[in-house]
Amino acid sequence: MKTAAYGVQNATSPVAPMSIDRREPGPNDVLIDIEYCGICHSDIHQARNEWGGGSLYPMVPGHEIVGRVRQVGPQVSKFKPGQLVGVGCMVDSCRHCEACDEGEEQYCDHTVFTYNAKDPKHGGLTFGGYAERITVDEHFVVSVPENLDTKAVAPLLCAGITLYSPLKHWQVQPGQKVGIIGLGGLGHMGVKLAAAMGAHVVMITTSASKAADATKLGAHEVLISTQAEDLAKHASSFDLIIDTVPVAHDLNPYIGLLKRDKTIVLVGPLDPVDVHGANLITQRRHVAGSLIGGIAETQEMLDFCGKHNIVSDVEMIDANYINDAYERMLKSDVKYRFVIDINSMKA
Amino acid sequence: MKTAAYGVQNATSPVAPMSIDRREPGPNDVLIDIEYCGICHSDIHQARNEWGGGSLYPMVPGHEIVGRVRQVGPQVSKFKPGQLVGVGCMVDSCRHCEACDEGEEQYCDHTVFTYNAKDPKHGGLTFGGYAERITVDEHFVVSVPENLDTKAVAPLLCAGITLYSPLKHWQVQPGQKVGIIGLGGLGHMGVKLAAAMGAHVVMITTSASKAADATKLGAHEVLISTQAEDLAKHASSFDLIIDTVPVAHDLNPYIGLLKRDKTIVLVGPLDPVDVHGANLITQRRHVAGSLIGGIAETQEMLDFCGKHNIVSDVEMIDANYINDAYERMLKSDVKYRFVIDINSMKA
Repeated sequence: MKTAAYGVQNATSPVAPMSIDRREPGPNDVLIDIEYCGICHSDIHQARNEWGGGSLYPMVPGHEIVGRVRQVGPQVSKFKPGQLVGVGCMVDSCRHCEACDEGEEQYCDHTVFTYNAKDPKHGGLTFGGYAERITVDEHFVVSVPENLDTKAVAPLLCAGITLYSPLKHWQVQPGQKVGIIGLGGLGHMGVKLAAAMGAHVVMITTSASKAADATKLGAHEVLISTQAEDLAKHASSFDLIIDTVPVAHDLNPYIGLLKRDKTIVLVGPLDPVDVHGANLITQRRHVAGSLIGGIAETQEMLDFCGKHNIVSDVEMIDANYINDAYERMLKSDVKYRFVIDINSMKA
Repeated sequence: MKTAAYGVQNATSPVAPMSIDRREPGPNDVLIDIEYCGICHSDIHQARNEWGGGSLYPMVPGHEIVGRVRQVGPQVSKFKPGQLVGVGCMVDSCRHCEACDEGEEQYCDHTVFTYNAKDPKHGGLTFGGYAERITVDEHFVVSVPENLDTKAVAPLLCAGITLYSPLKHWQVQPGQKVGIIGLGGLGHMGVKLAAAMGAHVVMITTSASKAADATKLGAHEVLISTQAEDLAKHASSFDLIIDTVPVAHDLNPYIGLLKRDKTIVLVGPLDPVDVHGANLITQRRHVAGSLIGGIAETQEMLDFCGKHNIVSDVEMIDANYINDAYERMLKSDVKYRFVIDINSMKA
């Protein structure tokens, strides 16, 4: 079916209206009327082909999708028309490798991303959530708690799960000291989620100006990482640190904050980071990376957010504002996530 | 008591004979007649003050010590005169912190190193194993199996435990694929120990010329890390990799060799290493560091080596050859560890 969407024709064109073809729901598919779609920083990188030349055009970005089921295929068992659902970064995987078997589809070698990917099963490219509708295999659709503010749920599907997954994988317990480096789209979710898990949450930032906001979001302390006395005060005291900073930086001041045998998890840095071996060796510390979460874990995260009434802090925009939103995101001028009201596309 | 030793007076002097004062054994002390002492690369760095200016002179290096008990204090329960014993990198720690309580004295904040350290309990500096005798609290003395080639045991006390500890901490199981990067004093122990644990051992080296030696030591395969096809063939296949290379290098080709959730452990690199976040994030991989082992684990390692008849490959030297040995070590011209015959000091 023809579906209205917003996307780019090539790496230099602005985000603009276009029409795409969605498949009619097959036996296991769910057809969703999209209501809201969050804007992730990776949307900009992919739209502008900033990740090593791999972008596929035309492209409809968007992998923080919330909407209502319009229609389901005959074999769909988990969803019914009218139900509030979400779709995150993946729409398929091989389904039979070790990662898939363990519910870690995000680490499957054949993950099909929600947009900017070839769809080996159905042919063509995948198109994301800057669109009126999307058709997705039910395995990759999650149920959204009705008690939450729907429009602010969208960023949970990427930013939320990217922080929830490492907090769970590294088994954060009540009373443990957890640091979140960087207060942006990812970081603000980390503060909310870690606090709801009962951790003692420390916002680690270079900007003293962010202290008040961090505290409002639930941080118990703020560590200004450019101040030597702050670093010294917190040395060797953290059970887990999650680093959401997206650009290359020196990891060594942060590594020294970890207790023996504890881990700093990179969820933002795709660029090189400097690591001094001695900082790891002297206390058997770890640097690890983590990528979104599996589908079952994404559902668990949404249920957790429903129970604790956690959503993202969002700024709502119409579809025709996406290009402006991109420019503002590049200046970190958003608290903390732009969400597109997809109704604005239908006018 | 006055004890003959070899040491340095300052950062630029050669290793030369000197006399040092050892304490008479106190209630918990063991007085050891040293028979053999291995030469560790760190001896050179410390003798020459290459680690940030912290060296303390005069200095008697040496922390790979094997000898026989000459005398014990009245409260010593674990050792008797005549017994074959070893001393490694530590001679004391606080004894009551979390690390000490867990038998991980190497991670205590108050570890007293075997040489080049202040001794807060007894005053003065600690002096190492390039000497006829040493007095050590029994807690930091280990028993050496009599069935092993004694002179080749010495390097187990540092090089051996440095590799054994991470192999045990990361729970290497029979059949698992373990990579050892670098074939030197540390690396050759890694190959022997991992093979004895039943792992499938891969020597990872830049030098094709080392393949035959690695195989002789017990490696099942050799991966030449400068060859792209070798890296591709082994991608995402390792359960554990231990990196013994002591100089700054790019870690990224090695990180890609790890399976999901697996770890590359730095035991050699004290300098910065480059880490690309994306290589960690895409498969939730880890980079960690590890430092020698605790005393109980060092005893366990020696017992394991006794059972499996594992010792270091050594080149024996007289004490007056130490300066030449240092120069050859800087050219990697030793297979794989120099050991000083302390008898040569007594002549």
